[in-house]
Amino acid sequence: MLSGTLREDGRDRPATTEDVLAALAGHTFFWLDLDDAASDGTVSELLSVHFGFHPLAVQSAERFNQRPRIDDYDAFTYLVARGADPDGSGRAEVHCFWTDRYVVTVHRGDCPALGEVRTRMERHHAKEAASPQIVIVYLVVSALADTFFPFLSKFDDRIDALEDDILKTPTEAQLGELFDMKRTLMEMRKVVAPQRDMMASINAGVTDVPGMTDEAAHYFRDLYDHLIRVADMVDNYRDLLTSVMDTHLSTVSNRLNVVMKQLTIIATIFLPLSFLTGFFGQNFAYMVRVWLSPTWSFFVLGIGLELVAVVFLLTLFRRRGWLGGPTV
Amino acid sequence: MLSGTLREDGRDRPATTEDVLAALAGHTFFWLDLDDAASDGTVSELLSVHFGFHPLAVQSAERFNQRPRIDDYDAFTYLVARGADPDGSGRAEVHCFWTDRYVVTVHRGDCPALGEVRTRMERHHAKEAASPQIVIVYLVVSALADTFFPFLSKFDDRIDALEDDILKTPTEAQLGELFDMKRTLMEMRKVVAPQRDMMASINAGVTDVPGMTDEAAHYFRDLYDHLIRVADMVDNYRDLLTSVMDTHLSTVSNRLNVVMKQLTIIATIFLPLSFLTGFFGQNFAYMVRVWLSPTWSFFVLGIGLELVAVVFLLTLFRRRGWLGGPTV
Amino acid sequence: MLSGTLREDGRDRPATTEDVLAALAGHTFFWLDLDDAASDGTVSELLSVHFGFHPLAVQSAERFNQRPRIDDYDAFTYLVARGADPDGSGRAEVHCFWTDRYVVTVHRGDCPALGEVRTRMERHHAKEAASPQIVIVYLVVSALADTFFPFLSKFDDRIDALEDDILKTPTEAQLGELFDMKRTLMEMRKVVAPQRDMMASINAGVTDVPGMTDEAAHYFRDLYDHLIRVADMVDNYRDLLTSVMDTHLSTVSNRLNVVMKQLTIIATIFLPLSFLTGFFGQNFAYMVRVWLSPTWSFFVLGIGLELVAVVFLLTLFRRRGWLGGPTV
Amino acid sequence: MLSGTLREDGRDRPATTEDVLAALAGHTFFWLDLDDAASDGTVSELLSVHFGFHPLAVQSAERFNQRPRIDDYDAFTYLVARGADPDGSGRAEVHCFWTDRYVVTVHRGDCPALGEVRTRMERHHAKEAASPQIVIVYLVVSALADTFFPFLSKFDDRIDALEDDILKTPTEAQLGELFDMKRTLMEMRKVVAPQRDMMASINAGVTDVPGMTDEAAHYFRDLYDHLIRVADMVDNYRDLLTSVMDTHLSTVSNRLNVVMKQLTIIATIFLPLSFLTGFFGQNFAYMVRVWLSPTWSFFVLGIGLELVAVVFLLTLFRRRGWLGGPTV
Amino acid sequence: MLSGTLREDGRDRPATTEDVLAALAGHTFFWLDLDDAASDGTVSELLSVHFGFHPLAVQSAERFNQRPRIDDYDAFTYLVARGADPDGSGRAEVHCFWTDRYVVTVHRGDCPALGEVRTRMERHHAKEAASPQIVIVYLVVSALADTFFPFLSKFDDRIDALEDDILKTPTEAQLGELFDMKRTLMEMRKVVAPQRDMMASINAGVTDVPGMTDEAAHYFRDLYDHLIRVADMVDNYRDLLTSVMDTHLSTVSNRLNVVMKQLTIIATIFLPLSFLTGFFGQNFAYMVRVWLSPTWSFFVLGIGLELVAVVFLLTLFRRRGWLGGPTV
Repeated sequence: MLSGTLREDGRDRPATTEDVLAALAGHTFFWLDLDDAASDGTVSELLSVHFGFHPLAVQSAERFNQRPRIDDYDAFTYLVARGADPDGSGRAEVHCFWTDRYVVTVHRGDCPALGEVRTRMERHHAKEAASPQIVIVYLVVSALADTFFPFLSKFDDRIDALEDDILKTPTEAQLGELFDMKRTLMEMRKVVAPQRDMMASINAGVTDVPGMTDEAAHYFRDLYDHLIRVADMVDNYRDLLTSVMDTHLSTVSNRLNVVMKQLTIIATIFLPLSFLTGFFGQNFAYMVRVWLSPTWSFFVLGIGLELVAVVFLLTLFRRRGWLGGPTV
Repeated sequence: MLSGTLREDGRDRPATTEDVLAALAGHTFFWLDLDDAASDGTVSELLSVHFGFHPLAVQSAERFNQRPRIDDYDAFTYLVARGADPDGSGRAEVHCFWTDRYVVTVHRGDCPALGEVRTRMERHHAKEAASPQIVIVYLVVSALADTFFPFLSKFDDRIDALEDDILKTPTEAQLGELFDMKRTLMEMRKVVAPQRDMMASINAGVTDVPGMTDEAAHYFRDLYDHLIRVADMVDNYRDLLTSVMDTHLSTVSNRLNVVMKQLTIIATIFLPLSFLTGFFGQNFAYMVRVWLSPTWSFFVLGIGLELVAVVFLLTLFRRRGWLGGPTV
Repeated sequence: MLSGTLREDGRDRPATTEDVLAALAGHTFFWLDLDDAASDGTVSELLSVHFGFHPLAVQSAERFNQRPRIDDYDAFTYLVARGADPDGSGRAEVHCFWTDRYVVTVHRGDCPALGEVRTRMERHHAKEAASPQIVIVYLVVSALADTFFPFLSKFDDRIDALEDDILKTPTEAQLGELFDMKRTLMEMRKVVAPQRDMMASINAGVTDVPGMTDEAAHYFRDLYDHLIRVADMVDNYRDLLTSVMDTHLSTVSNRLNVVMKQLTIIATIFLPLSFLTGFFGQNFAYMVRVWLSPTWSFFVLGIGLELVAVVFLLTLFRRRGWLGGPTV
Repeated sequence: MLSGTLREDGRDRPATTEDVLAALAGHTFFWLDLDDAASDGTVSELLSVHFGFHPLAVQSAERFNQRPRIDDYDAFTYLVARGADPDGSGRAEVHCFWTDRYVVTVHRGDCPALGEVRTRMERHHAKEAASPQIVIVYLVVSALADTFFPFLSKFDDRIDALEDDILKTPTEAQLGELFDMKRTLMEMRKVVAPQRDMMASINAGVTDVPGMTDEAAHYFRDLYDHLIRVADMVDNYRDLLTSVMDTHLSTVSNRLNVVMKQLTIIATIFLPLSFLTGFFGQNFAYMVRVWLSPTWSFFVLGIGLELVAVVFLLTLFRRRGWLGGPTV
Repeated sequence: MLSGTLREDGRDRPATTEDVLAALAGHTFFWLDLDDAASDGTVSELLSVHFGFHPLAVQSAERFNQRPRIDDYDAFTYLVARGADPDGSGRAEVHCFWTDRYVVTVHRGDCPALGEVRTRMERHHAKEAASPQIVIVYLVVSALADTFFPFLSKFDDRIDALEDDILKTPTEAQLGELFDMKRTLMEMRKVVAPQRDMMASINAGVTDVPGMTDEAAHYFRDLYDHLIRVADMVDNYRDLLTSVMDTHLSTVSNRLNVVMKQLTIIATIFLPLSFLTGFFGQNFAYMVRVWLSPTWSFFVLGIGLELVAVVFLLTLFRRRGWLGGPTV
């Protein structure tokens, strides 16, 4: 069963094979949006048999999770555009077939970006300036590209929160999260960078697209500007994540220093004191008889000596600034 | 309400819609500088309806915090230039619309760079050499680019101060500051790098600009030279920050070494001594009776042995150079 | 003895020197696939004497473990293509000689990719669109390129498993494994990157290949797209491995912190307590006679003081959050 | 007061304004070398009023610490060349104005490179092959470029010395020095890299220079070769400094290991021994009466047990290789 | 005294000035190979006076340890090629002067690569395909490039051995060796990278060389392929060395963990035990009289309590997995 929407003369209706064939036979511009969620071959049959697209392109249109690219076939142009898709659902990927007379888009499941295109299409200023196929392609790629910004904005906040967390208490769970974030960025980069390069090649005129005019070129330049910003942000966040990782290591090392300083202070105070008490706990007859028997000797040797030791050590620590605070 | 300044024949006056329309209808060159702080649509209406600029450009002019770029439309050239804006106020961003007959600049709030342009314009040598629109654009971009230098100079000092601080006492607050500085540099890079590339493309003749002459090209080369220096400095500071981060980690590790050495010295001296006192504190009848009862045994075993142990250990430490100083 | 397969008119038969010479003398397109496992010079003799290929190319065809490349000789094109070959067996390397009239491939041992080419050749849609030599080269390079994906997918899983392992228990064996994985990626990069560049140069028209048509170009673009994805994945995994290494170091440091905290807690509790018991173990006559003889003094000084010390220290630790859990 | 040297017909004399004007009016080639140490405007007045150079170039010639570059004006070429200037004195910077008929160089203070140019000029083989202005520019840039080599050679030695020092005793002072060296390299890179690119653009014919011939081009290629070597060395040293930093961290960590091993050995030997002595120091009546009263029990329990413990622990350490040496 | 070999008509003889002049005056192709080990000016005199080479090229030919490059003079081509020279002897550096009629090579001391050229020249297949000067240059550069492979193969083994060593026992000597290896690679890169770029520029036709034909181009492509492989390997090894450095740091940190765990175990067992013995070693009259006098109290309190403590702690350690093995 074919599932999709056919738009002709500004009106949308569910696409049936008959309507599509009629539109194909007519002379009006139309946009056919197909949902390939079923993956049962209906879509690919339609594309290869009735539209007569090149088998390589049809084959590619059936497989999702593709690298964004633009391929210029003799009779049509094939373009893969993608948006932010953090949960890997594949719903932010659109494949466009695109000639002078019609545009066919293939998506999978509920693609929010395409819904937005439909609502924006009627009132968008591009409508007057450029040919209809350019308007559709521009709006599709633009809607997909716009999905990156809220995603990256959340990412930005997450990095800041992580940095703050780490400076407060570094944990191992944060290391795992950093790794996951790095991976997410890499997935994103794989989607964004080729899309940016694709727009660059269209702008430079290296790739010819049907319906392109001087006027339409402004819209592609606009897209390029959006995508280059997304790509720059992805690169920046990657750099920042490395920085956060370094902060983690440095903070952990710093904390270790604090712990060790405390251990050293405790040991430096109590090991000498224990020695002193041990000394006067020996069973030397002379010491017991002569040194330890007078009453004053307890206060002078037993308590006085130890107080002297404690005062001396605390003075030493204060001078080295070790008693200042919890930081090193 | 329109807020801005109209400059015609070398005289400035507050811009009213009527004056602007009159200037537009006339044949004299004029410069209209608009303040879009209100963001109430007056500016965009003027630009799209009366000046007839392309909707994409007008839309872009209304949004601040844009990536610097230059777009060549049929009837005009649209340029976004930015300066250093550490507090994110958006006051160092100017959007220029620019044709053979006039220049329109849009800024937001009080933009110090534009004020400077006005004072420099009368007496600047560029006035004689280049067309008026080139002079204005050159002075605007130049004034914005010059705001980077004092900012970077402070940044430079801050890096040096931080490095010195860290070598004196590494703290975790410094890690947070390093991260903030890295972020600031990234924001800056996002503003500087595209501006530099924009100038490179103008210089290479890839981008055509209205009013460009051989003579005017010298001014753009000068701008390029300024921006490439700023971009190089940003890259260098990024590198230096990584270096400072490494210094932090190494210093913390070094300090840990010092602390541990002290702990080890204390433990190595007092653990053996405590063993000795413990030994002579045992209740073995033979030891108490035979070894510990003579008076001399206290001085030889109780004090002598321990002095020997201390002297031996101190000699050992001195040989290993552990008693030299506070550094490792 | 010649070992190989001669394919003419869609039929395969074992290649004998006579058949090859007959095919060479005829006018039908043929594909000769040679197995150079023996390396006894038969293959190189055939190539240089009967086919008359350039000595440099023949020499190169005899040596395996080559850098993928394409060389354009006057009479033929020489291409080296490679697939994933984790155990270094050399069975994923094919050398193609390729003219308008025939294709000669040289491999070593049992090359699974070539087997696949044979089964796919009959029913592949490229057959109708492109010249036979392009179909063969496309299918060979494509089959070799497809061997990378399962390999990289396993690699991906291995990285994730390693990261999880490290966060659970960092060991030194993992460091060795990380190093081995990095090395494997480098070997892979050496094979993939030149192959991608080779396709880029064919697509850009820098390198001319026999039998190339507009239609055939689509197939090479498809190959390019595959190889660029593989190359990007290799680069990403390299980056991730560095990240995993950093995680290892940070985790080890973190664990050290946990251990040291435990040592510090133990020492901070028991060193003061030992001092107290040592204090009351001294042999001062006054202390023994006056302080320690009443019954209550044992409960107050001997047990009470120590309980007070323990309670005080535990309260201190709880406040610092040191008793919270196994993480720092 | 004008301070400088005028060279005409192979003879040098102090430059006076009259002589300069006379030379300018004449038809002989001359070289005017000006010292702008006073910065009192005399030089810029001469350049702008009498020579009629472009105000942008004159303005630039007055400011030192500039980015090396070459600017092609209609009537002249303006070039900034710099040498190694570790103390930031600005004495290794020369600004050249350069036409078919004369060369004007501006420097500040005592510039050793210019002195060398004068002595080399008479006997240099370039004299016969190229036009006089090319010879002067070549010799000036060449003399400045040659100042980098001794400086970098000292830098190289310093890196090696630092690495050796760190492996002997890592200190925090070395971290500060590493940072300073990194900074110096960055300053250097800012001077060298644009100079190299300048020569590349001259060699590629992108930048036209007056008096350039095929023959003269060899000299600029020679300069390019020198500068590319300097730039490569700067990059290499930057890499090496990072390596030295890593060595510092690893060495400090290694030393920590040594210290901790010693602490662990001491504690592992003396804590059990102290326990034993503590055990036999208890006041249990039974133990004192039965176990500790026979003479042999002292030798067996008091001394024997402890010897057994020590021997056991030393054997354990030896097996783990902990007693081998000072390294881990 | 001139030291070198003159090859004319396939025969070698020691070069004398007379013979060289005769060859120069004749019309036969000849190859003059000069040894400049003496550096006494004979060679440079011959080159500048009799051959009339450009003074810049002659000057360069006299200095060894040069950056590989190719310079195209009007009458001849000057090329510097280098091989692996780990001990810096300068014996793997050849300077070629090269025209349509002869080739002059200058080397210093005993250059093994040149010897190999002589033996390979007679029987090499290039002889029939390309002009004699191309054959000589190809063979010289090829012989020099081939010296890199055995060197890099040894380097590869050394890296693996070092990684294994570090995982077994990390020492500081390894850090020094890593630094030395990094330095060696850098020296190598300085020699290889420009050589690769030189071949790339010859292949791309940017640099014209005398005697170049379509046929000869294959040989230069072959050289390019060799050099790009060497350059890639150098880059890979640099990356691997960084990895080995990281392994060192991680291993040292890991070992520290092991040591600290042991210290913590020892302290956690013996500090509480010592407290217990200390407790019963106090001189409280009540405790001594009531608690410690019965025989059973020694077994219950003196031995029983301590056994309970040890069992409790060992159970705790086992649960945390601390008694598992020597790794963390």
